[in-house]
Amino acid sequence: MDPINQRIGDMLARIRATRPLIHHITNLVVMNDTANVTLHVGGLPVMAHDAEEVAEMVAHAGALVLNVGTLSPDWIESMLIAGRRANELQTPVVLDPVGAGATQLRTRTNLELLRSLRIAVVRGNGGEIGALSGEGGEVKGVESVSGPEDPLTAARRLAQTYHTVVALTGARDIITDGERVLTVNNGHIWLTTLTGTGCMATTMVAAFAAVERDYLLAAAGGLAMFGLAAELAAEKAHGPASFKVALFDQIYNLTPEQVANGARVVEGGS
Amino acid sequence: MDPINQRIGDMLARIRATRPLIHHITNLVVMNDTANVTLHVGGLPVMAHDAEEVAEMVAHAGALVLNVGTLSPDWIESMLIAGRRANELQTPVVLDPVGAGATQLRTRTNLELLRSLRIAVVRGNGGEIGALSGEGGEVKGVESVSGPEDPLTAARRLAQTYHTVVALTGARDIITDGERVLTVNNGHIWLTTLTGTGCMATTMVAAFAAVERDYLLAAAGGLAMFGLAAELAAEKAHGPASFKVALFDQIYNLTPEQVANGARVVEGGS
Amino acid sequence: MDPINQRIGDMLARIRATRPLIHHITNLVVMNDTANVTLHVGGLPVMAHDAEEVAEMVAHAGALVLNVGTLSPDWIESMLIAGRRANELQTPVVLDPVGAGATQLRTRTNLELLRSLRIAVVRGNGGEIGALSGEGGEVKGVESVSGPEDPLTAARRLAQTYHTVVALTGARDIITDGERVLTVNNGHIWLTTLTGTGCMATTMVAAFAAVERDYLLAAAGGLAMFGLAAELAAEKAHGPASFKVALFDQIYNLTPEQVANGARVVEGGS
Repeated sequence: MDPINQRIGDMLARIRATRPLIHHITNLVVMNDTANVTLHVGGLPVMAHDAEEVAEMVAHAGALVLNVGTLSPDWIESMLIAGRRANELQTPVVLDPVGAGATQLRTRTNLELLRSLRIAVVRGNGGEIGALSGEGGEVKGVESVSGPEDPLTAARRLAQTYHTVVALTGARDIITDGERVLTVNNGHIWLTTLTGTGCMATTMVAAFAAVERDYLLAAAGGLAMFGLAAELAAEKAHGPASFKVALFDQIYNLTPEQVANGARVVEGGS
Repeated sequence: MDPINQRIGDMLARIRATRPLIHHITNLVVMNDTANVTLHVGGLPVMAHDAEEVAEMVAHAGALVLNVGTLSPDWIESMLIAGRRANELQTPVVLDPVGAGATQLRTRTNLELLRSLRIAVVRGNGGEIGALSGEGGEVKGVESVSGPEDPLTAARRLAQTYHTVVALTGARDIITDGERVLTVNNGHIWLTTLTGTGCMATTMVAAFAAVERDYLLAAAGGLAMFGLAAELAAEKAHGPASFKVALFDQIYNLTPEQVANGARVVEGGS
Repeated sequence: MDPINQRIGDMLARIRATRPLIHHITNLVVMNDTANVTLHVGGLPVMAHDAEEVAEMVAHAGALVLNVGTLSPDWIESMLIAGRRANELQTPVVLDPVGAGATQLRTRTNLELLRSLRIAVVRGNGGEIGALSGEGGEVKGVESVSGPEDPLTAARRLAQTYHTVVALTGARDIITDGERVLTVNNGHIWLTTLTGTGCMATTMVAAFAAVERDYLLAAAGGLAMFGLAAELAAEKAHGPASFKVALFDQIYNLTPEQVANGARVVEGGS
């Protein structure tokens, strides 16, 4: 077995064994879904956003998710407080820049988070990563209408600028720390028919980052498992909602062995 | 084929072809569901409520949904900002007056929105439309306990007062611009067993209004398709939750031809 | 038939006959789920949190749920306003102390609610009840990592201190008013794989409390029915999400007779 696959399977086993708390400060649309995804992959979810408690809460967490999908000023403040505390504790922070590029508020806020915090992984679609990297792309609401012309270059530039790992998800997922590149070929077109699948992918990345300090590999692991679950779920789908039920069931049912066998991760961005 | 049916099928085809952005400022209970309904019918959803970004966001939208289901003052302010910008751009605004009649805050806020903005369509249940029209009816929480004695008169009066289209949904849906009247006979009793089906219907209306300037017909189209999906979903339901899965699958799977064939829309309010 | 079972079946029949409004001031994660559970058991849900309307809304309610899962200061203020009005009207208030013990804000807020209001039932997991009673236990995020050494003593102490009924849910549910004790043996391990099942249980308790002034028995009834629905749903589950669909369907489909027959409630805490 490819050593990457073996390591991805091992990460899932560690999530299931240690049940890391994944603290989310996330948007109002996906809270229920991402809490369930956290539980199904093996972690413990908590959604807490008040400035008074986020620093205390994140101190118990294995990873922190910052997701700006339904932004408001007081939540941004809480994200900064929680993020700084996570940085002090070396707890990985995973950023989902939902809708970056769609409005100035979203673009500016994401750049502020990237500048103010040490972000372990940024997980976004082509339009969002394009907007943040300055390499172009278009976002309509929260959907990527078009990505940057060269996604890998955009991801690499963003990763280098902010010393982070960038995971640009789409038909194929590109992950880079600015030098190394991994490509994840798992996934299914049904994922585009549901709201919040990007946010769910981010939660998967956070769960893996909670148990693996090589964040490039952690991101690949989370995305490969999510994509694999989607592939298997598609066999039972009659539409987006039955696909979602099957997807969540699969995330719960997949074993470390199945994930190690089914992950399709390759080195390089070709 | 009835020309109305043909036009309804054509509208769905246009939604699928143009994927209009449907900007929602909506309640916390239904955000996920209405985002998914938007995607399944063929549009792109975005939920954005911060005063700083709503005017910018709505400028890219094909329609704006204002839904007061879980009201708070800062969201009302955002609704007014987004609504005014939508009015400037001639983008249709669809209002869902959730719980109008249940509390003074809800009744007053909905009337303020109706007075301050040019609303394309108001979609509410009998109790809500009754309360806003002054024709009576009772709302308990967000449910219509009893509608106005004469629903058509209530709908007509509200439509005339605010120069809008009123869609009063129930066992049969009545839609009027104050003069013309359409009745939609699609639907299923299972819809009453789920939370948020009124809000979902509003989202359907908004998606159709994004591609059709005859808002009376657009409202009929959205409601007919929603009701038709419910009829087909009921065949697979073992209870409300399996009904919901089937309903969402159906909204996604229905083709323009099926909707044109299955819509049961008649002129007049008899 | 055991008289307790008969009374539980009768309560469900009363819920279905009178459709009490269950006013929730609850967390952002579970709003949709608990609204649906309210409808499926037979009540009418409303989620309303603005300080300006909560007193008016709760005046029409059969029960008030206060759930602190995603806390912020303005919501706490609304909880106090609604709770005081409910107390004046003798409307039962059911508290779900989500995450008590996890942060100081959560522990302090729950104790403040317990001191300021007359709470009919507190429904929490072992860690939460342990933290509030001072009897120990550990909460990680919102999950009970470990309960108090002697759950019954913790529940009893909390009940006595605040003159309330405490329902400590887990593999077996312990319910006490400080003197009398009931144990509910219904339930299923699948409930631990889904987010918000504690909150759903609280909603069930509130629906039963809306029609039964013996809150000890009402809590047992709500929890027994919820657990029974879970047992039946487990037969159709392929994972947590299909379990959830089946659970919600079952809550809707269960008849008073089935609940009277299937409830496994015993007196005492052994």
